[in-house]
Amino acid sequence: MPSISKKGRTMPESPIRKLVPFADMAKQRGIKVYHLNIGQPDIKTPEIALEAIRNFSGKVIEYSHSAGIPSYRKKLAAYYKKHNINITADDIIIGAGASEALLFAFQSIMDPGDEVIIPEPFYANYNGFAINSGIVVTPIFSSIDTGFALPPIADFEKSITPRTKAILVCNPNNPTGYLYSKEELETLRQLVIKYDLYLIADEVYREFCYDGHQHYSCMHLEGIENNVILIDSVSKRYSACGMRIGCMISKNKELMQTALKFAQARLSPPTFGQIGAEAAIDTPDLYFTEVLHEYLMRRNVVVEAINKMPGSFCPNPKGAFYVVARLPIDDSDRFCQWLLDSFDFEKQTVMLAPASGFYSTKGRGKDEVRISYVLNVNDLKQSMKVLEEALKVYPGRTN
Amino acid sequence: MPSISKKGRTMPESPIRKLVPFADMAKQRGIKVYHLNIGQPDIKTPEIALEAIRNFSGKVIEYSHSAGIPSYRKKLAAYYKKHNINITADDIIIGAGASEALLFAFQSIMDPGDEVIIPEPFYANYNGFAINSGIVVTPIFSSIDTGFALPPIADFEKSITPRTKAILVCNPNNPTGYLYSKEELETLRQLVIKYDLYLIADEVYREFCYDGHQHYSCMHLEGIENNVILIDSVSKRYSACGMRIGCMISKNKELMQTALKFAQARLSPPTFGQIGAEAAIDTPDLYFTEVLHEYLMRRNVVVEAINKMPGSFCPNPKGAFYVVARLPIDDSDRFCQWLLDSFDFEKQTVMLAPASGFYSTKGRGKDEVRISYVLNVNDLKQSMKVLEEALKVYPGRTN
Repeated sequence: MPSISKKGRTMPESPIRKLVPFADMAKQRGIKVYHLNIGQPDIKTPEIALEAIRNFSGKVIEYSHSAGIPSYRKKLAAYYKKHNINITADDIIIGAGASEALLFAFQSIMDPGDEVIIPEPFYANYNGFAINSGIVVTPIFSSIDTGFALPPIADFEKSITPRTKAILVCNPNNPTGYLYSKEELETLRQLVIKYDLYLIADEVYREFCYDGHQHYSCMHLEGIENNVILIDSVSKRYSACGMRIGCMISKNKELMQTALKFAQARLSPPTFGQIGAEAAIDTPDLYFTEVLHEYLMRRNVVVEAINKMPGSFCPNPKGAFYVVARLPIDDSDRFCQWLLDSFDFEKQTVMLAPASGFYSTKGRGKDEVRISYVLNVNDLKQSMKVLEEALKVYPGRTN
Repeated sequence: MPSISKKGRTMPESPIRKLVPFADMAKQRGIKVYHLNIGQPDIKTPEIALEAIRNFSGKVIEYSHSAGIPSYRKKLAAYYKKHNINITADDIIIGAGASEALLFAFQSIMDPGDEVIIPEPFYANYNGFAINSGIVVTPIFSSIDTGFALPPIADFEKSITPRTKAILVCNPNNPTGYLYSKEELETLRQLVIKYDLYLIADEVYREFCYDGHQHYSCMHLEGIENNVILIDSVSKRYSACGMRIGCMISKNKELMQTALKFAQARLSPPTFGQIGAEAAIDTPDLYFTEVLHEYLMRRNVVVEAINKMPGSFCPNPKGAFYVVARLPIDDSDRFCQWLLDSFDFEKQTVMLAPASGFYSTKGRGKDEVRISYVLNVNDLKQSMKVLEEALKVYPGRTN
């Protein structure tokens, strides 16, 4: 039997997916499972995007340009201009999702053994992309007690080594929903200049900001144009995860020429996703007004409900559609599995993501879970009721 | 200015794309350029595939299963059964093109510094995927004088080291069009057993076999089920390169579980490509009969024309839609550029791919070019006339 790579053996299983078999078994027992574990929105994709795909009139589905269809990139540059981000089509490389775009970025700036600093908890698949690229993630602890604000700069500086090449932030944040302020990003700007690092910002939740807060992009930071890499995606913005369209953006010409070589090796991004994504740029503003209103109500349902549960705490995040909550539990992995294999309230249960999977440091997040508020308000209210009842009887309850 | 990775600096530019600026300039001078440099077929995508995409009636473009839509994989297994390849849906992971599928395979079986043996000339992007994965390509020379038949097994054995993990063959071959025989594959089978290596077979041109020859798949080799990895794609089969749908297939359960972790990290393959690819499986046989008849005529035009040019030689390959031809030229890179920037015949010229880019060993392929016969017969005849005239006056002609 030929061998499996070390890379393959150390590749983590997704914290979101490892409970899937238990959810399936619960469903087989006739239990309704509320899925609060995934980032798959239930919001409709804008009709304008679906229509463009249905109207495809080509006769041959050809390779597109390796960096993406030029007309799409041009229109995308105009989208960013609306967000006060001044870039041209040449500063964009379209990827098969933000996933591929981030891999292009990692590969272009880091070699095996190089290091990227990421505040934890962080999007679990960053670990996968790091292992894929042979690079090392250095986590910096951000605490639920500050609502997962940016850790002090001193903590970053302590973690910088000669192999450190980049800092990666997700803003608004998955899994915490935290929205970094202009001031926090300014401190990162100073750090990036001082150590000549790349600043990679995953801003796929840009549109999802609440309570009147504005998103401040890493592209707004002045004087570090050659250091900044923006990672983006249409998956969440237009509820179009299956289109697999994301992008990597930078004003650093040498970097983009390098990334293009990785893009050329795989020939092109998906054609239909690009057609849909290009059309989606004309989505009426009303769509976002409605979507944001919906998510705001959902967030309020979750945050209020959890903070009323004895021994539980949930910050009130300003962005994305996730919260990380602290619950009175011994072990979030055990609790989330128990919810599926040993508990039901009136034939219903909830599926949550154990927060441990979002921490790189072993042992952290054991009393925390990530909740995606991607269900309608009624289902969310019912889910919170189920969670409340579960906490009352969970054998591993801590207080 | 932060640094670019070594990986990024050593990433090769595509041999197919580096001449594009010269082609653009030729077109600006009013010269018609016949594109024989790329693998983008002019054949129509089956209507049944386009229709399925146009008929998409979903309201949300959701993530699909990380391994690919289950109904698509099930139907794909039935497609393979028709080709006497017995697999189930669980043996398949769908990728964004064969490119991503091959990256999954490389990552799952090799760590940085590990080696894969590939007969050269080979598909140039294998180099890119190897650099991406930090692995080393060990080329084995296959000669135009044998029509690019499989090199002697002794040559493989000489190249095997403790770091050798796999042998990769493309069958039918890009760039040579060579179709490996059952006997040749049997010798690889012996080798794979003897050294417990993986055998990766890129069979994306399976349908394109001529002169009554049958394709023999690596999946037909008995007793090495755990060693064989099949890489496939719908790009060429259905002339649907932009769908970005390929797959990785293996009976090795441990390998597939590992590859799935890489697939999960990037969430899912493109939805619309999968919808089109699933529908395309019902493409009527007549489509392939017509396409094969068309390619056969094209191949004959190219092979006959080149073998009539003094000092030139072209094997008569049995598969794919490429030939590698030997021309009386000093340097194929120089020649291919000269065709675009210094030559025209009645305001026409041809764009070819220098074969040097398909050899890993420096200096090889200097008098060879790859020709993709992806134009209609009339255009191909005209292209061959242009090439003939070009060779008469090329300043670097060698005999």
